[in-house]
Amino acid sequence: MSSMQSQPSQADNNAPHIGTLPSGALGTIADVEGVTVGHCTLAEGALQTGVTVIRPHADDPFVDKVPAAVSVINGFGKSVGLVQIDELGTLETPIALTNTFGVAAVAQAQIRAAINANPGIGREWPTVNPLVFECNDGYLNDIQALAIGEQHFNDAYAAAGTKVASGSVGAGRGMSCFDLKGGIGTASRVVSVAGREYVVGALALANFGRLPMLVVDGHPVGRILAERAAKAKADADATKPEQGSIIMIVATDAPLDARQLKRLSLRAAAGLARTGSVYGHGSGDIALAFSTAYTVPHLAQYIALPPLVADQCMDPLFRACADSVEQAILDALWSAQSVTGRDGHRRLSLRESVPDLAHLLKQSP
Amino acid sequence: MSSMQSQPSQADNNAPHIGTLPSGALGTIADVEGVTVGHCTLAEGALQTGVTVIRPHADDPFVDKVPAAVSVINGFGKSVGLVQIDELGTLETPIALTNTFGVAAVAQAQIRAAINANPGIGREWPTVNPLVFECNDGYLNDIQALAIGEQHFNDAYAAAGTKVASGSVGAGRGMSCFDLKGGIGTASRVVSVAGREYVVGALALANFGRLPMLVVDGHPVGRILAERAAKAKADADATKPEQGSIIMIVATDAPLDARQLKRLSLRAAAGLARTGSVYGHGSGDIALAFSTAYTVPHLAQYIALPPLVADQCMDPLFRACADSVEQAILDALWSAQSVTGRDGHRRLSLRESVPDLAHLLKQSP
Amino acid sequence: MSSMQSQPSQADNNAPHIGTLPSGALGTIADVEGVTVGHCTLAEGALQTGVTVIRPHADDPFVDKVPAAVSVINGFGKSVGLVQIDELGTLETPIALTNTFGVAAVAQAQIRAAINANPGIGREWPTVNPLVFECNDGYLNDIQALAIGEQHFNDAYAAAGTKVASGSVGAGRGMSCFDLKGGIGTASRVVSVAGREYVVGALALANFGRLPMLVVDGHPVGRILAERAAKAKADADATKPEQGSIIMIVATDAPLDARQLKRLSLRAAAGLARTGSVYGHGSGDIALAFSTAYTVPHLAQYIALPPLVADQCMDPLFRACADSVEQAILDALWSAQSVTGRDGHRRLSLRESVPDLAHLLKQSP
Amino acid sequence: MSSMQSQPSQADNNAPHIGTLPSGALGTIADVEGVTVGHCTLAEGALQTGVTVIRPHADDPFVDKVPAAVSVINGFGKSVGLVQIDELGTLETPIALTNTFGVAAVAQAQIRAAINANPGIGREWPTVNPLVFECNDGYLNDIQALAIGEQHFNDAYAAAGTKVASGSVGAGRGMSCFDLKGGIGTASRVVSVAGREYVVGALALANFGRLPMLVVDGHPVGRILAERAAKAKADADATKPEQGSIIMIVATDAPLDARQLKRLSLRAAAGLARTGSVYGHGSGDIALAFSTAYTVPHLAQYIALPPLVADQCMDPLFRACADSVEQAILDALWSAQSVTGRDGHRRLSLRESVPDLAHLLKQSP
Repeated sequence: MSSMQSQPSQADNNAPHIGTLPSGALGTIADVEGVTVGHCTLAEGALQTGVTVIRPHADDPFVDKVPAAVSVINGFGKSVGLVQIDELGTLETPIALTNTFGVAAVAQAQIRAAINANPGIGREWPTVNPLVFECNDGYLNDIQALAIGEQHFNDAYAAAGTKVASGSVGAGRGMSCFDLKGGIGTASRVVSVAGREYVVGALALANFGRLPMLVVDGHPVGRILAERAAKAKADADATKPEQGSIIMIVATDAPLDARQLKRLSLRAAAGLARTGSVYGHGSGDIALAFSTAYTVPHLAQYIALPPLVADQCMDPLFRACADSVEQAILDALWSAQSVTGRDGHRRLSLRESVPDLAHLLKQSP
Repeated sequence: MSSMQSQPSQADNNAPHIGTLPSGALGTIADVEGVTVGHCTLAEGALQTGVTVIRPHADDPFVDKVPAAVSVINGFGKSVGLVQIDELGTLETPIALTNTFGVAAVAQAQIRAAINANPGIGREWPTVNPLVFECNDGYLNDIQALAIGEQHFNDAYAAAGTKVASGSVGAGRGMSCFDLKGGIGTASRVVSVAGREYVVGALALANFGRLPMLVVDGHPVGRILAERAAKAKADADATKPEQGSIIMIVATDAPLDARQLKRLSLRAAAGLARTGSVYGHGSGDIALAFSTAYTVPHLAQYIALPPLVADQCMDPLFRACADSVEQAILDALWSAQSVTGRDGHRRLSLRESVPDLAHLLKQSP
Repeated sequence: MSSMQSQPSQADNNAPHIGTLPSGALGTIADVEGVTVGHCTLAEGALQTGVTVIRPHADDPFVDKVPAAVSVINGFGKSVGLVQIDELGTLETPIALTNTFGVAAVAQAQIRAAINANPGIGREWPTVNPLVFECNDGYLNDIQALAIGEQHFNDAYAAAGTKVASGSVGAGRGMSCFDLKGGIGTASRVVSVAGREYVVGALALANFGRLPMLVVDGHPVGRILAERAAKAKADADATKPEQGSIIMIVATDAPLDARQLKRLSLRAAAGLARTGSVYGHGSGDIALAFSTAYTVPHLAQYIALPPLVADQCMDPLFRACADSVEQAILDALWSAQSVTGRDGHRRLSLRESVPDLAHLLKQSP
Repeated sequence: MSSMQSQPSQADNNAPHIGTLPSGALGTIADVEGVTVGHCTLAEGALQTGVTVIRPHADDPFVDKVPAAVSVINGFGKSVGLVQIDELGTLETPIALTNTFGVAAVAQAQIRAAINANPGIGREWPTVNPLVFECNDGYLNDIQALAIGEQHFNDAYAAAGTKVASGSVGAGRGMSCFDLKGGIGTASRVVSVAGREYVVGALALANFGRLPMLVVDGHPVGRILAERAAKAKADADATKPEQGSIIMIVATDAPLDARQLKRLSLRAAAGLARTGSVYGHGSGDIALAFSTAYTVPHLAQYIALPPLVADQCMDPLFRACADSVEQAILDALWSAQSVTGRDGHRRLSLRESVPDLAHLLKQSP
């Protein structure tokens, strides 16, 4: 029996389980207690885009800030909110993901929501730091239409729950990955650290890579598919650089401070590399990690922390981060449905594109 | 005769000239050939805010990108566009400044303007990285009104020219500095480097500091004024932390690459410190430096550079950066007019607040 | 015929060729014109250590400095010289590698050599920045003996040539990798960028990883071997954290500046991850990249650069970096000979440890 | 009565008290409970150099590591140990300061001392990270003689106590500052944070600046002295770039984590700027901050922390850092004695160079 209890359907329909660590009960980022995810999806003709919101806990993150840190693996990107997280080591809004040109509307919505909840913001209190990540879904989505509005953030926020959909949903609606349909993927791992169990969960917005690069659990699937395709027809696009990106959100209930969370977030780069990425020039590859083990109250003069996991005990967490990120990317590919968008552009799902995938994974060297 | 030819009025009305380097002909950032500045000012009742735009050259910066780098001195801030500048070392939109909650609208306007000029953006070309800096003008301005719209960016952009207004204009309209009226300040210095003359220009959006901290050209003016005020009445606010910020834009025609521009931008921290700042917790202190000596064409495969100033010859540029930033901050204080804004909040100009300023500067130890 | 012309022996004895890019003629970092490597090896009883020197060109690097940049992937390490490279973007001594407690002696030797060549150093000229990387070879080597002396650097320097030995030599003598014998590995790749051919070469000092993590060209070899070992006997050490490290030196003849070299160096992290590493807590994982396309003369006032490869054309170089680093790590494993060191500690070579390796690679899923 | 109780001699002989915060009882870094300092001074002919050691507490810092962080303000320097502090946020040896070419010997001594105290280092335990800062004293000292040996570190360590000598002692023996005699300076400030009192102490190794830059408590003393000198004789050296550096060590008993200590350490740049520095190209300007409020035990699995000062309450600490660093630099100038070194080079003390200094400070604008 697979430990990936979240995908109990026929084994052949599941992405292979990465590594030897067990998955959490849900197999999603929501295995980290308190974390919820909501999507708002736009899917009408040339508009194939959306917003995804991750809430780190059920309360107001401006009042109870969350320890967090970011690793910018490749900074060709337009995400906002990172400067302050780097300085203060906390996030103070939900984490929002959307398309590159939807960032402004979503940031505005974050600001308005924070003001509504805390009328002192920008008056006797400081301003709020909206946290919005993005990828460019311009191949399928008419990104120039600037279709994302403030309401879409609100809708995604309202939809947040522990049942996390993945694939061509929310911010993932218009995303491409390895020339296939990409989008939202999620996974989790449970590890034992210094005698206690902790969960690491990942949610990826996967929008990177060219087909020949794809590696699935060590199998050079992309190379095989590219050779197959080359026999059928010349791939005119093969040398085009990628313009994609990936956002990797890593949650954990392990008690870590911001410096340690920065270390943890960088291990997303290892999981990403194992899928075939070399952090291409045009790919904004960014990882954020946060901990739910404690909060930093807005007006406190002193911050009480639980005992922190010692750095020398972090290796299981590092492994869980890399594995869950790799698994989340595969989940995006396995869960995504084919989508047709602007100008008739179409991205096939991995399943549709490679009907014999399960066979291929067993056979490939 | 003062070398600050841009302020030829009575000497007593001018800020003291900082240091021994001469100013450029205009005494503004526009002394750097090709650089222009425009303001759009909102000044109606509780709305006291605006947008300022700096164009690094007369052409489209997306097509001809500009080498640039950022130093985040204190990252309590919400400016956007810095991640990509850090990675790629170029800016590709005009530099916009506004209030904290106007960033989204201005970023949206930058995106729309870039798309209009370059319809390939977000289609066959990558997306564009809007560059928007901010300070919190919430004491004078009803920042919760989210009054900044896209048109305000467009108006500021359209107004850009070599005649640079300073004081309570543009993004500086609602800003406070040392508990006085702050805002936009600008200055320049001319230096000789390896046998050639180069210009360094600075534009500051000054919105930081409590009164007792103010130092003018080495004189502890703030301490004197605070003692004077203490005799008159108790300053109930004296222990409130600052919630301000300062944005410092540094331009030069010296040929420098992004790594060198990062070094240059950090020297803004020296000029800032000399006015009394210790980079307070709540103050988002950020400096950007760019060079006009060459551009990075959008579609080029190779980038031809002019011979770069050797690092070992950069000291005069470092001094010019520190001096012009300090001078720009003083210019903001000297140029600003008193402003009354939301809830009757009022910031007096330095001139109005300290009628005997010139005398005081001559007397103080 | 394999493109790895440097290892023309029986194909089964070679590490698999990583990726689809061709190797250079030598299959080593010396494929980058001008780069030479020398080793000095100590192999007597409990002393199993050494020094490796990489010369970026045939001339004096203090007089003709070399553009360079470093990515610290995991900073649990004691390498020296990185602060100045970060600031100035150049290296000015040969690159030296040794054991952790040999750094001081080698740095001293670098200083003395630089003074001998340039008597102005520390007088009318600035001091010199010795560049020394290290890994901890304490399992096999009596590192507390502080056996490395200045002469060992001089010997390695004198031995530098284009014929690059790999395996249990030089700084690699006492190193362990995946609980097997590690050490020095090297590889190269040739890529086409904007119509021209460039070479990327890598040299790794591989001293990281526990056996179950080892992945060879996507094959989970370590997991298979660990399961095999578990059947034979309980592996008492299996949960011990790694105390290793890896240093990855990347050379290229592509014209890049320091900012671009920093981008390039980070792609070593992708190659490293593909061998199974998650950048473990105790592993000081550091990559340095340098370019031989131009030098920065010590006393120049202006630095003339060749046209630089545009960032948007760097993807082939990124791929070459990741592939050559992964290949170099495999080369270390394939080339290393078994070594017995202090207290009877012994590391078996991969070949000796897994006689059926070629068969296993063909069979594994 | 001055609050600088450590210098109770005639007021005119003391450096002016910087700012309005009171000094601690000793007026040195040793006002931070547990911190001790020792010097070893070499002063024979052309050898004018030494070693200074700061012990953060009375116990073994390898066993009880100390939270710490570094800000590299200008990275033209050869200090060692910074990479690991950046990653792990702790220091694990005493802090040593010496001349640039003495770093290797002192690092070696640190390693040997750590091994002696902890025989597991480099065996079953990881290696140790020696922390050694440096400035170039080559004007007065024959730095090419490599005169610093391991014993000098041991002697400085053995001499550590709470009575801290400043001036031309220890690592400061051969240092120059503003073309005058520089060296070791120290100071402290007491601040109230969230209802409790904390101490911030600074120790500077001051070896930077050209005379015309010197500013004393806002007074442009250097400019006045340079004009005076110019009347007497042409200063042939006036345009030579500085080759100096400054190391600033900041200690506090406030409970801060490594991220917060990094913020604190950067405020040293403000104090430095107020003395006239613009962080010149050739000046390696580095600040380290550490806290004595808790330690990180070497083998712990969980790290228990006291409640940390909230970031929003850090402003008094920031001010204390800037003020005590500025004060420490003045202390170096005021305490230093004139020194004659190699080739008859001589640096006059400030007192000897400017007999009318007290008068000048009262008169200057």
